[in-house]
Amino acid sequence: MKTLDERLTLLAEVVVRVGLNLQPRQELVLTAPIEAVPLVRKVAEAAYRRGASLVLPLLSDDALTLMRYQMADLEALKKAPAWLYEGLARAYREGAARLGIRGGDPRLLEGVPPEKIAVAQEAQAEAYRPALEAISQFVTNWTLVPFAHPAWARRLFPELPEEEAVNRLWEALFQVTRVDQEDPVAAWEAHNRRLGELVRYLNERRFHALHFRGPGTDLTVGLAEGHVWQGGAAQAQNGVVCTPNLPTEEVFTAPHRARVEGYVTSSKPLAYGGQVVEEIFARFEGGVAVEVRAKNGEAFLKALEADEGARRLGEVALVPASSPVAKTGLLFLETLLDENAASHLAFGQSYAENVPGSPEEQVQRGGNQSKIHIDWMIGSPDTDVDGLYEDGTRVALMRRGEWVI
Amino acid sequence: MKTLDERLTLLAEVVVRVGLNLQPRQELVLTAPIEAVPLVRKVAEAAYRRGASLVLPLLSDDALTLMRYQMADLEALKKAPAWLYEGLARAYREGAARLGIRGGDPRLLEGVPPEKIAVAQEAQAEAYRPALEAISQFVTNWTLVPFAHPAWARRLFPELPEEEAVNRLWEALFQVTRVDQEDPVAAWEAHNRRLGELVRYLNERRFHALHFRGPGTDLTVGLAEGHVWQGGAAQAQNGVVCTPNLPTEEVFTAPHRARVEGYVTSSKPLAYGGQVVEEIFARFEGGVAVEVRAKNGEAFLKALEADEGARRLGEVALVPASSPVAKTGLLFLETLLDENAASHLAFGQSYAENVPGSPEEQVQRGGNQSKIHIDWMIGSPDTDVDGLYEDGTRVALMRRGEWVI
Ligand SMILES: [Zn+2]
Ligand SMILES: [Zn+2]
Ligand SMILES: [Zn+2]
Ligand SMILES: [Zn+2]
Repeated sequence: MKTLDERLTLLAEVVVRVGLNLQPRQELVLTAPIEAVPLVRKVAEAAYRRGASLVLPLLSDDALTLMRYQMADLEALKKAPAWLYEGLARAYREGAARLGIRGGDPRLLEGVPPEKIAVAQEAQAEAYRPALEAISQFVTNWTLVPFAHPAWARRLFPELPEEEAVNRLWEALFQVTRVDQEDPVAAWEAHNRRLGELVRYLNERRFHALHFRGPGTDLTVGLAEGHVWQGGAAQAQNGVVCTPNLPTEEVFTAPHRARVEGYVTSSKPLAYGGQVVEEIFARFEGGVAVEVRAKNGEAFLKALEADEGARRLGEVALVPASSPVAKTGLLFLETLLDENAASHLAFGQSYAENVPGSPEEQVQRGGNQSKIHIDWMIGSPDTDVDGLYEDGTRVALMRRGEWVI
Repeated sequence: MKTLDERLTLLAEVVVRVGLNLQPRQELVLTAPIEAVPLVRKVAEAAYRRGASLVLPLLSDDALTLMRYQMADLEALKKAPAWLYEGLARAYREGAARLGIRGGDPRLLEGVPPEKIAVAQEAQAEAYRPALEAISQFVTNWTLVPFAHPAWARRLFPELPEEEAVNRLWEALFQVTRVDQEDPVAAWEAHNRRLGELVRYLNERRFHALHFRGPGTDLTVGLAEGHVWQGGAAQAQNGVVCTPNLPTEEVFTAPHRARVEGYVTSSKPLAYGGQVVEEIFARFEGGVAVEVRAKNGEAFLKALEADEGARRLGEVALVPASSPVAKTGLLFLETLLDENAASHLAFGQSYAENVPGSPEEQVQRGGNQSKIHIDWMIGSPDTDVDGLYEDGTRVALMRRGEWVI
């Protein structure tokens, strides 16, 4: 049994080699909660070992975030650091790799008035847009990785003392990041190959739409013209093959922004904006979610008013209900993990790698533009998914939540 | 006797009210070592209480800094985050206040090859230039404040257990920031009035030069044409009166870049670039330091090659040898403090508030331009300072290190 320190070292290796595939002389910009400093240092060590030029951490403090929501008024909450996010976008475009270390209290903002959250997050999304664009255009190699933040662990295991809760969360995180396997890097290579086969299969079929059927769901998601499926390792515009998101269990592509019809119900709660949104229901006409309901969904629903593209889909992703994340049996209340336990949709911005061409051409082909990108889970062990050809014939892709191809 | 927590609260009040004079709706960008998070949170609380719109911390980790110097090669060390510093400059110009929380191991880089430090710091200075320009042009209200970093405390009190060492350092820091006084804000107002009187006196006299005499020193420092003395509270270009540097005990102005003659010896060691530089000796001709020597001065001497202005003076400052910082009897190995225990000079960039006019006019008047600004201490209880008029007559300003005006 390896010590926590040894497994953090292995996780850092997986992040730098598999997640980022960091290149010699490359700069690495990473965002992390201050509690993650031990992992940050491990990642920096692995990065410098590979010849990184500079590891620049941008550390955040949940206590400050919460304090601001409590003390600042609505007008003050409209401020967001555009100068920082434009700087980040520039860094990515100039070659810096990006790592996001994720973790924190999913219910941090639970006592905050929803209009405060909505105002602040809209300003945040607007200011962050240049950075989100750079990432959605896949200009550089990047990944996200979870960290067992104490406040997060306490929420997941309220019955355990904090230290035990953190250890339990780490166990789950090492499982889903394959760090508990004999050779984690080799395990990721094998997994990336399997995802690559699914991607190839789907790209060859060139389906016109996907059809989801399950409890509370009967949804047809048209796919963008010339859409490209992605999953696992992929090549960024800077030529580097990286694995965005650790873990990643999905294959995903771009819906057609004007061709989504039917209704769909979320299969898992969604942690969004420091709140836990439940029972999301959406009905689509002509690609637009003309009706959306949710429990504790004030900030979520408000985000869907961000711009014209916010109520349209930017991503559809297929994940088997038996994925390693699902197998932990945990609801993590962290999208990075929960979206890898179930097929999902995202409102908002589509990824450039899913639709060929310039941003204008992407929109013509049905790609979506928005300053938001919010994933939510719709897949379950009761969900069936078919691929539809333009002539209406169909192919079974998933039955009872599992791949049948 | 107040608790540490109570005194941190008071220090934060002094920082926000006296140091920054933070305005309602103003953004605050602060830099701090991660160990300073408890003070960061206090400052954020005080800032939000005054109506700040956003407190954005940029936290650094000495462990990462050291790791980079140890693991990255010379080529990699040439990388510096220009995108971040240009972003900072933009934030300041767009109205954000700036706070620097200072503290760390003054000998952090002692084992690192000097050429590595020189290469990295030159790249750093070049990238940081836009931010330094914004600060030296005083575009926004700003201040610096020290924090009792454990590694710093251990260096100052190696004979004490860490916790005691940190407490001893805090005692000294609360003393010099006047937090130990009955009403710290009132104490600062009184002190700022005294500095204001010295400034008025010196600005009325319009000296042509200053003359320093002391052990190893016989130096005539010509002053820039139309030079303005500053000290204590001052008005930034955004109209806000702030107190840059907590503590501050100096009155200072701009030397004439071409009229410095004679020789001078440092009176205290200087912590620069993670090393402790001792026994600095400089001989000036026509404003240029034509000869500079120093012990452990590799990085320091290398910095003086940064550009044409790096070997010229950008600041001359008068501090009585009995200042509260000097009275602690400690050598802090942190310029923010040590420069407020002794009269000092700075190589490099002059401050815009010391020379009227546009950047071009400032240079014509004898202001200096450089990407560096390095203060070093020359005053001692044996130093005499005279003010010289253009006709050669002189006025005694300091005798045996103390003001005589
Ligand atoms: Zn996805
Ligand atoms: Zn997504
Ligand atoms: Zn000074
Ligand atoms: Zn200075």
